[in-house]
Amino acid sequence: MFDVEFARFGGHPIKAWLTRPAGDGPAGLRPAVVEYNGYGGGRGLPHEHLAWAAAGYVSLLMDARGQGSRWGAGGDTPDPVGAGPATPGFMTRGILDPADHYFRRVFTDAVRAVEAVRAVAGVDPARVAVAGGSQGGGIALAAAGLVPDLMGVLPDVPFLCHFRRAVDLSDREPYIEITTYLSVHRAQVSAVFRTLSYLDGVSFARRATAPLSHPGAVPPNASGQQPTSWPHSATPAGWLAPRTP
Amino acid sequence: MFDVEFARFGGHPIKAWLTRPAGDGPAGLRPAVVEYNGYGGGRGLPHEHLAWAAAGYVSLLMDARGQGSRWGAGGDTPDPVGAGPATPGFMTRGILDPADHYFRRVFTDAVRAVEAVRAVAGVDPARVAVAGGSQGGGIALAAAGLVPDLMGVLPDVPFLCHFRRAVDLSDREPYIEITTYLSVHRAQVSAVFRTLSYLDGVSFARRATAPLSHPGAVPPNASGQQPTSWPHSATPAGWLAPRTP
Amino acid sequence: MFDVEFARFGGHPIKAWLTRPAGDGPAGLRPAVVEYNGYGGGRGLPHEHLAWAAAGYVSLLMDARGQGSRWGAGGDTPDPVGAGPATPGFMTRGILDPADHYFRRVFTDAVRAVEAVRAVAGVDPARVAVAGGSQGGGIALAAAGLVPDLMGVLPDVPFLCHFRRAVDLSDREPYIEITTYLSVHRAQVSAVFRTLSYLDGVSFARRATAPLSHPGAVPPNASGQQPTSWPHSATPAGWLAPRTP
Amino acid sequence: MFDVEFARFGGHPIKAWLTRPAGDGPAGLRPAVVEYNGYGGGRGLPHEHLAWAAAGYVSLLMDARGQGSRWGAGGDTPDPVGAGPATPGFMTRGILDPADHYFRRVFTDAVRAVEAVRAVAGVDPARVAVAGGSQGGGIALAAAGLVPDLMGVLPDVPFLCHFRRAVDLSDREPYIEITTYLSVHRAQVSAVFRTLSYLDGVSFARRATAPLSHPGAVPPNASGQQPTSWPHSATPAGWLAPRTP
Amino acid sequence: MFDVEFARFGGHPIKAWLTRPAGDGPAGLRPAVVEYNGYGGGRGLPHEHLAWAAAGYVSLLMDARGQGSRWGAGGDTPDPVGAGPATPGFMTRGILDPADHYFRRVFTDAVRAVEAVRAVAGVDPARVAVAGGSQGGGIALAAAGLVPDLMGVLPDVPFLCHFRRAVDLSDREPYIEITTYLSVHRAQVSAVFRTLSYLDGVSFARRATAPLSHPGAVPPNASGQQPTSWPHSATPAGWLAPRTP
Amino acid sequence: MFDVEFARFGGHPIKAWLTRPAGDGPAGLRPAVVEYNGYGGGRGLPHEHLAWAAAGYVSLLMDARGQGSRWGAGGDTPDPVGAGPATPGFMTRGILDPADHYFRRVFTDAVRAVEAVRAVAGVDPARVAVAGGSQGGGIALAAAGLVPDLMGVLPDVPFLCHFRRAVDLSDREPYIEITTYLSVHRAQVSAVFRTLSYLDGVSFARRATAPLSHPGAVPPNASGQQPTSWPHSATPAGWLAPRTP
Repeated sequence: MFDVEFARFGGHPIKAWLTRPAGDGPAGLRPAVVEYNGYGGGRGLPHEHLAWAAAGYVSLLMDARGQGSRWGAGGDTPDPVGAGPATPGFMTRGILDPADHYFRRVFTDAVRAVEAVRAVAGVDPARVAVAGGSQGGGIALAAAGLVPDLMGVLPDVPFLCHFRRAVDLSDREPYIEITTYLSVHRAQVSAVFRTLSYLDGVSFARRATAPLSHPGAVPPNASGQQPTSWPHSATPAGWLAPRTP
Repeated sequence: MFDVEFARFGGHPIKAWLTRPAGDGPAGLRPAVVEYNGYGGGRGLPHEHLAWAAAGYVSLLMDARGQGSRWGAGGDTPDPVGAGPATPGFMTRGILDPADHYFRRVFTDAVRAVEAVRAVAGVDPARVAVAGGSQGGGIALAAAGLVPDLMGVLPDVPFLCHFRRAVDLSDREPYIEITTYLSVHRAQVSAVFRTLSYLDGVSFARRATAPLSHPGAVPPNASGQQPTSWPHSATPAGWLAPRTP
Repeated sequence: MFDVEFARFGGHPIKAWLTRPAGDGPAGLRPAVVEYNGYGGGRGLPHEHLAWAAAGYVSLLMDARGQGSRWGAGGDTPDPVGAGPATPGFMTRGILDPADHYFRRVFTDAVRAVEAVRAVAGVDPARVAVAGGSQGGGIALAAAGLVPDLMGVLPDVPFLCHFRRAVDLSDREPYIEITTYLSVHRAQVSAVFRTLSYLDGVSFARRATAPLSHPGAVPPNASGQQPTSWPHSATPAGWLAPRTP
Repeated sequence: MFDVEFARFGGHPIKAWLTRPAGDGPAGLRPAVVEYNGYGGGRGLPHEHLAWAAAGYVSLLMDARGQGSRWGAGGDTPDPVGAGPATPGFMTRGILDPADHYFRRVFTDAVRAVEAVRAVAGVDPARVAVAGGSQGGGIALAAAGLVPDLMGVLPDVPFLCHFRRAVDLSDREPYIEITTYLSVHRAQVSAVFRTLSYLDGVSFARRATAPLSHPGAVPPNASGQQPTSWPHSATPAGWLAPRTP
Repeated sequence: MFDVEFARFGGHPIKAWLTRPAGDGPAGLRPAVVEYNGYGGGRGLPHEHLAWAAAGYVSLLMDARGQGSRWGAGGDTPDPVGAGPATPGFMTRGILDPADHYFRRVFTDAVRAVEAVRAVAGVDPARVAVAGGSQGGGIALAAAGLVPDLMGVLPDVPFLCHFRRAVDLSDREPYIEITTYLSVHRAQVSAVFRTLSYLDGVSFARRATAPLSHPGAVPPNASGQQPTSWPHSATPAGWLAPRTP
Repeated sequence: MFDVEFARFGGHPIKAWLTRPAGDGPAGLRPAVVEYNGYGGGRGLPHEHLAWAAAGYVSLLMDARGQGSRWGAGGDTPDPVGAGPATPGFMTRGILDPADHYFRRVFTDAVRAVEAVRAVAGVDPARVAVAGGSQGGGIALAAAGLVPDLMGVLPDVPFLCHFRRAVDLSDREPYIEITTYLSVHRAQVSAVFRTLSYLDGVSFARRATAPLSHPGAVPPNASGQQPTSWPHSATPAGWLAPRTP
């Protein structure tokens, strides 16, 4: 298990946990999974992320910049970029221009994380998948739309999808950040949704070519998330089947 | 990783996940940790419990009978014993007699779990610890008070401690179950606290002789839990320290 | 007024309040009403149930087994049967098999309560009605579907009706117990609704032949109850009309 | 059972339910109980108030003027007097002058209710008690302080007591009405508490000479009520003891 | 700035703040705006209402009788008229008869306020507008329907419109007052909505002939208000445009 | 009224509303007031801030950088500086170093705002006061501690005072941001409170020499604010007294 860091958007260093299976792989290079965390969390502690390595994958858990202070064991990566007037949270930072938006930086980080894991010794660069739940699922969809030759994409209950509908349906965090912003800045509705259209998981999913292990790109429900959970059903079959002694 | 089951209180079968480190141990027998889950949860899915095995321990995660349907990936163990009038939950089942109380059965299960893991091939029976958070911490304290020769006890934010004070301080689940019960059954106050006195982690902690890796037996605060967290500080030092590549 | 007890499901003793009108009846045998209590309550105190007797009916208020600890003056009847993993409450106890479900026992109790009151000296067995509000209304519907020759059924805002729709509409207790259970046990959706289909007030109401004094079997609204109240409108006309002095 | 009305404060007609035991009394005149309802409720429906009559008392349930529209089966008595600026509710109507306050009218009504029941044929005027829960308990204390020769006073969880402390402790209805009023009218603190001092159950209890069946005049707790309940414990012993058949 | 008072409904004195622009008007008589406050508030403090005067208008801010104790700096006007049983608040005071309803008095006050400002020296009686937000918007619509020759009406997010739909959509204050009332007084549904039909802003808006500066008469949304805000968009253009120094 | 902008911390442009009284001053130079807004708000719309100008002061309302998107009519000033991992909001941005903290930038802006208004033509630089409520009060205290020769300081219900006690007492926004941060970053308690000690209004108030028009520096209560309000009591006496016509 390694504490790694590599340059991403704007050259900013991003922290991650790189975990390798114990011992040598069964034969030559190993496949890898890049994971992204949920909204407000961070990469946490390394021993919280052992499942992929136990199943024989190299895993890289990327820290979402600037987050990692709301729940769990936290994150370690600053976001050195400021913003215009914004509601508390990350949804409206840079909301008036796609080039300035917080998630443009995160999605770039996500692509760089795939590149970084492909360069790790012992990883088969042709067998890298992206995964994540909630915000992590949205980031995984973005990565899948931006990186052409992934082995697979496993988005679980992704958010960051179909913002216009999500804002209509949901009155909870994090979509409420957009609603609150617009309740104050009433003249900016079209600018806000124009920016968000550049960040929409639905659009990225359309561009993606990697096999999807989960129907992740459907619009969120009223609680802002898609109501299933891949750890139960979408994990590659048989990888951790318990045996009866 | 194994799906195990063994007879405990009343001969009722109890489910558990038994997880072994990959490969042979460094030299001969391995130490083991018996874990108990938090209130309303269950043993969940096996790949959620890899940390102890990754650190070189055999681990046994015991399912709390009858629970496992409120959060997480659930449990698989029935509690075949009924109860008198009770508030929803497990705190007041059998509340009028220590011999009938739900947690008498669970604590007996917990002791049997230690015995069961000691009988597992490759486990060093002299090096078994008990651990758990919240309800699991309370169960670990009870096991430590009932089993004389444990290697250690790691209770994290234990509940089930100092019920009288907890009921005064906390208006949340699960202590509110007791308050609600007493608001209806006003004549049973002394009978209720007499029963609970047999189940109190403070008393078990006094009897325990195993080294304590965490100051767990202090009374809970207003939210019903003790305000620290052992994954960060009480885990045996160095067992999972990440390295920089 | 009498504190009565009689054997019901599994021979378990069930408590009830039997209340007779003061003095002799106007002429021979009296009609009777069997009442069932709302969710979480119990038979309470005897002087809380004087209205039917004041109106000339013998009344029997049956205690819902295992409940009676959440509000009011409580109940006195244990439910000696345990359950598999279940959410706090009574909705998911034995949820995987109709033969095991909690309400199978309660509905059997409810039928036995009718038989018991018919055997009471001075009661006209041909003039027995069943009544209840909320859970009590659902139990009354079940009794009306299982007992062929009742004088009438007075279900008020019954719950336990059309579970599939109720779970969609309501996010409150007690239907949320089912939702919570399924959020953990995702593979059991069809088994759960199969069990519930055996307990559905809509089905019992179809079988019932007794005159209905209230449109009780319609599906519940978003708060899980049907939005009218029979004490005001469905009570047999004129039975308690106040006079001007 | 009778629907009665009599003139009270300002000659305003007040509604009440007068309920007599069935049949003739055991010997001559009967004792009577005057009851007052809780905050926001009213006299409700007549068959909701049968317990005192079943126990052999004549009972008079007085409607609190202007209330009776928030819960239960409601009330029927207007309060024809207006008020200065006030928060929604009844606590701050006429708050700047004891002579104008809403509860001055209600307490006068309460005294007149005792006089009215004493004039009812068949009632023993020397054996009249006052009773009530929550607001009704506070009104009963006021009546006991204003009427010199009552048989007893049964205040249950009375509110309207020790306003200064109650406002400090409680952030709930109805005391919050006073807090809200003062948050707007900051210069009126001393005038408000001067008015309330004329309405305080603690003062009335000091003047009362009737035997107290309940320790009702202690200051309320944080929820604004005193934490016991007389229907269980303070009712004259034995009056409704159920028998085993 | 003046503290004024004039007789309105029933001759009751009503308080208001009359504010004049500093200095003489640009040429002769000035236009005027009569404003009404939101639900639960009052005329507040005089320096809170300077915008119209700064823009060259005489302004009269009328105090809503009996309110002014829930938020802000309060009100000073009593409502000397009582009511039948009512829920806390003002919506159901006099709900059984249009002639008795609280808002009949307020709407009469509102008309008298227009007459009063027209009589102020220096005001051009042909150029008087009415304005207000929330409850104030509903009152402004009523005034516009009752006074034939206003210069304009500026209702912002008006409530008091289309009560039947509002009660269906909204479960918040103040519409919930009606719902609560009807939950108790179930036989009064048609009487209640008949009374409210006399007070409906939709009807007043149909009768109004003054130019509307805001689409105010649309039915409220689920939060009980119409979702825009005129201070931003409906204020006569250019009246307060900031300049760059 | 002017839309102004001037360079502050780091040369970042800050927006403000500068409002002058109409007409010439009574004699020569006018006094001025610099105001700061509450947490989450911004400078809003110009016509919302007319009271100081109506009273004869030049006023400058400074926009809090990066905020202005949570309530009211919003703000217009970006904060171009990023941060390490932080909870949503502004309290923990740069929390690990006083030199990096968000409020260091805001307090510098606040000092520059005083300098800016002193340079405005027609302003008497010897008669400048600072004012604000809640966050604005904390900023005013900081300005008063940093600018030696102010005419006065009017902090109303200031927050940003005595953080250690505030975090103990309050579980609401904005202090909860600190608590949430520390629940994740448990090893940073002393670093966090060290940073906050540089930003504490209590310390600034000790350094301030300007006359205080309000007892603002007392620690906040459980809701995080000091429970009085200066618009009613602390405004310089007589400045806006209404007259009776």
